[in-house]
Amino acid sequence: MKQRLSEARVARLATVDAGGKPHVVPVTFAIDGDTLFFAVDAKPKRTNELKRLRNIAANPAVSVLVDHYDEEWSRLWWVRVDGTARIISDQAEADRAIDLLVNRYPQYRRERPQGPAVAISIDRISAWSPG
Amino acid sequence: MKQRLSEARVARLATVDAGGKPHVVPVTFAIDGDTLFFAVDAKPKRTNELKRLRNIAANPAVSVLVDHYDEEWSRLWWVRVDGTARIISDQAEADRAIDLLVNRYPQYRRERPQGPAVAISIDRISAWSPG
Repeated sequence: MKQRLSEARVARLATVDAGGKPHVVPVTFAIDGDTLFFAVDAKPKRTNELKRLRNIAANPAVSVLVDHYDEEWSRLWWVRVDGTARIISDQAEADRAIDLLVNRYPQYRRERPQGPAVAISIDRISAWSPG
Repeated sequence: MKQRLSEARVARLATVDAGGKPHVVPVTFAIDGDTLFFAVDAKPKRTNELKRLRNIAANPAVSVLVDHYDEEWSRLWWVRVDGTARIISDQAEADRAIDLLVNRYPQYRRERPQGPAVAISIDRISAWSPG
């Protein structure tokens, strides 16, 4: 379960806005101990990037899903992290989080994420696979 | 955008519980016009299946994501549906929704989903791809 989570290349992050509406986007991520990190990348800040940060500022509860789809449904699986998110304000901590992401994704070596970075404290991990 | 959405085999459904916490799970789905359908399948009802239905009963706002991950990041894309969900109470309507799912997924022909079925009225479609 932890291995599937830590090896996945993409996750889907669900946040909730101040009005109680959910928002779901794909995110690249890195895990260190009981914390999952993601960051806003270096591209011009898109509405969508900011939306996830606004949501976290309004409501820190997040749900992060890693899943595998296969037409052979006996091979389906997913792992979900429910956690509490915090936009990292300390620059040294943000740098460490972004280092983790750059280490995992060679793509980020070309263009290092600018941040902000977000730390999700993992409250619960759930998993499912058939049978 | 609509084509990527309608051709995708799996989506991730984000719902929000009565306490404002998000919940995200993979779902199979079918689209008919401006409505996206999914159903609880025939397996013994799992906590997780019920959780998404409880959340929708408490808060009908949902967000549904279809995305493509590729190590070549210029090929990334996602399409998101924000909508309003309703658990279908009319049996004939539920049968039609489940027929749509069975038509899309040969896997369901072996074991037809029992339901309940959920109709998500599509309020907005957003999409992203690089550049």
